[in-house]
Amino acid sequence: MKILILGGDGYLGWPTAMYLAHKGHEVTVLDNLMKRRWEAIAGVTPLQHLPPYQDRVRLWNGHHADNAIDCRICDIAYNKRYFDEIFETFLPDSVVHYAEQPSAPFSHLSAAAGVETQQNNLLGTLNLLYTVMRHNPECHIVKLGTMGEYGTPNIDIEEGWLDVEHNGRRDRVLFPKRPGSIYHLSKVHDSANLEFAARVWKLRVTDLNQGIVYGTDTDETWLHPELYTSFHYDAIFGTVINRFIAQAAKDRPLTVYGSGGQIRGFLNIVDTLRCIELAVEHPADRGEFRVFNQFTEEFSIQELALRISKLFGARIEHLPNPRVESEDHHYKAKHTALPELGLEPNFLTDEVLGEMHKFVYKHRKNIDETVFKPDVLWRT
Amino acid sequence: MKILILGGDGYLGWPTAMYLAHKGHEVTVLDNLMKRRWEAIAGVTPLQHLPPYQDRVRLWNGHHADNAIDCRICDIAYNKRYFDEIFETFLPDSVVHYAEQPSAPFSHLSAAAGVETQQNNLLGTLNLLYTVMRHNPECHIVKLGTMGEYGTPNIDIEEGWLDVEHNGRRDRVLFPKRPGSIYHLSKVHDSANLEFAARVWKLRVTDLNQGIVYGTDTDETWLHPELYTSFHYDAIFGTVINRFIAQAAKDRPLTVYGSGGQIRGFLNIVDTLRCIELAVEHPADRGEFRVFNQFTEEFSIQELALRISKLFGARIEHLPNPRVESEDHHYKAKHTALPELGLEPNFLTDEVLGEMHKFVYKHRKNIDETVFKPDVLWRT
Repeated sequence: MKILILGGDGYLGWPTAMYLAHKGHEVTVLDNLMKRRWEAIAGVTPLQHLPPYQDRVRLWNGHHADNAIDCRICDIAYNKRYFDEIFETFLPDSVVHYAEQPSAPFSHLSAAAGVETQQNNLLGTLNLLYTVMRHNPECHIVKLGTMGEYGTPNIDIEEGWLDVEHNGRRDRVLFPKRPGSIYHLSKVHDSANLEFAARVWKLRVTDLNQGIVYGTDTDETWLHPELYTSFHYDAIFGTVINRFIAQAAKDRPLTVYGSGGQIRGFLNIVDTLRCIELAVEHPADRGEFRVFNQFTEEFSIQELALRISKLFGARIEHLPNPRVESEDHHYKAKHTALPELGLEPNFLTDEVLGEMHKFVYKHRKNIDETVFKPDVLWRT
Repeated sequence: MKILILGGDGYLGWPTAMYLAHKGHEVTVLDNLMKRRWEAIAGVTPLQHLPPYQDRVRLWNGHHADNAIDCRICDIAYNKRYFDEIFETFLPDSVVHYAEQPSAPFSHLSAAAGVETQQNNLLGTLNLLYTVMRHNPECHIVKLGTMGEYGTPNIDIEEGWLDVEHNGRRDRVLFPKRPGSIYHLSKVHDSANLEFAARVWKLRVTDLNQGIVYGTDTDETWLHPELYTSFHYDAIFGTVINRFIAQAAKDRPLTVYGSGGQIRGFLNIVDTLRCIELAVEHPADRGEFRVFNQFTEEFSIQELALRISKLFGARIEHLPNPRVESEDHHYKAKHTALPELGLEPNFLTDEVLGEMHKFVYKHRKNIDETVFKPDVLWRT
């Protein structure tokens, strides 16, 4: 299958590219490399120095000539003509779209960062829809959304759609969203545009509302010492488990925001890759807007802190919550569609945490302790 | 009260500015004049030649020195610094935000027009939120949305919010949207951003989901022969009743899309002004996202065509529907909030239609018959 991966330089995009190429798919990756600038703006770096995008692809292709990846630098939000050309030439069966500013705290860094987040994410996705409609409406769009689009409603969360009864009448509606940040809003806007593209333009769309991803390695990152992915442990781009592990490895307290009663869905990075593969292998129908909630387990932040604290002897520090979010709420979210397609979850075992800790500990000299602190406030 | 009106050169913005100035409010209008370019792109002009923005304000100020309007040219999506400066200097109590690309067909003219619609509308509104938060979070934002955000769900439409019960639990959620165009989507995105700004940043927001406006004149446009507003009768910018009246005045058939069974909410342009006044005089609370459905009557398109046909002897022509929309659907939408605040509707009487027809008939030599035809297809 021909698969175009947007955002191929990222934490998830890069391992996804190697994984799908390794499985025998014909893969083209595309990135605008803007994330590297956003990291610079936030003043943070990944745990390991990240070689240039082109070098990583060259390294992969050197070892895997039969599963070579084609690599392009293109901004889907602004280089429309070049993007059209790449798409039209490659004519992918599926597009996997990770090419978005991925951080809620980054989107609250400044007005400029908030506007850039929505502009980049919305325009990129919208251009993708026009490009697919123009050059190959059969192409399946697999879009990475987030569980954070739903927020924490007081009702059970379904997979994208909700059957409602109101004044004795019924309808099936998009699940109402209550996103918690300017970044999460950008994904809500994307979802609305995607649903329209399926309903009115008859495109094939799978929206993956992903939980919080953790992990350092996948089957392919192990294949060569320099194929690792971009692992962030800072308060801007580092997801919570990754950050806790880095704090533990550095003998620093695990920074819990508020009480830590916030419950979220989580998944292992290797499950992300498998979910993408399952979505790609089972495309949505023409005109279908299909939503999968992509996570395997739910934990409260405090629960995670306690486990990691116990395992590695780290202290827990409760900080005033920089975000505006509920710390005591109902959380029951359906996530059966991907297991039904064949996902076999890799759960967050002590062994998994141990492996992560071992990896991060090995690189602990690279950790800058000053970036653990959450400096970005939702309300100023 | 100090009121900043965004989009002061438009069909509704201009009469709103005169109306509120006439009532004794201190009014600043702002416009980027982009609508004049969009008209040029669509190849259409209003019924009467529209004098330059600055000339209209000068004319008003010449006759109404005590109720003078301050006039600025600024693009809120891109001239952020100048917009901040205008806002900070004037420090309005309310901002009335009309400054958006206002046409669904325009947003489907091309990929470029669709992207520009969402970019302009979303970025302008988002910048407004940051400006208000920075310079005066007490300022009340009155934003023009549209009933088209809801689409035509199979359940009754409430005013912005819906009480849902699901699996035995309850919540009050944003009313689920099913917008019918790229333009309508832009307003849905705006509403999501506005709700966030109220919930998280504690701004005061009123989102007015307006029906389809009709009418040529208001109390102030009569005050001088050149204070008229921009009246469109074409298939891109002309709303349906205005277009039917122009078709009747030109002895052309009334162009109904499909069966005409589509039901929509409507209101007279003079009621728009009164609704804005009521919203401004009764501001939302800090942290409140208040939604009013702003229309006074519901009609099907066929019903309107029959009435106008009967009154003025015009023929009805059913065209293949260029849009993707249901022509046979449930439609019951609540609209009690504005009457409760004091709105006394001006209904679509035969007299009102007669006055409109008289006005348009007087200018019928200006009517270009070729722009009645709906050339823009939703699905190509």
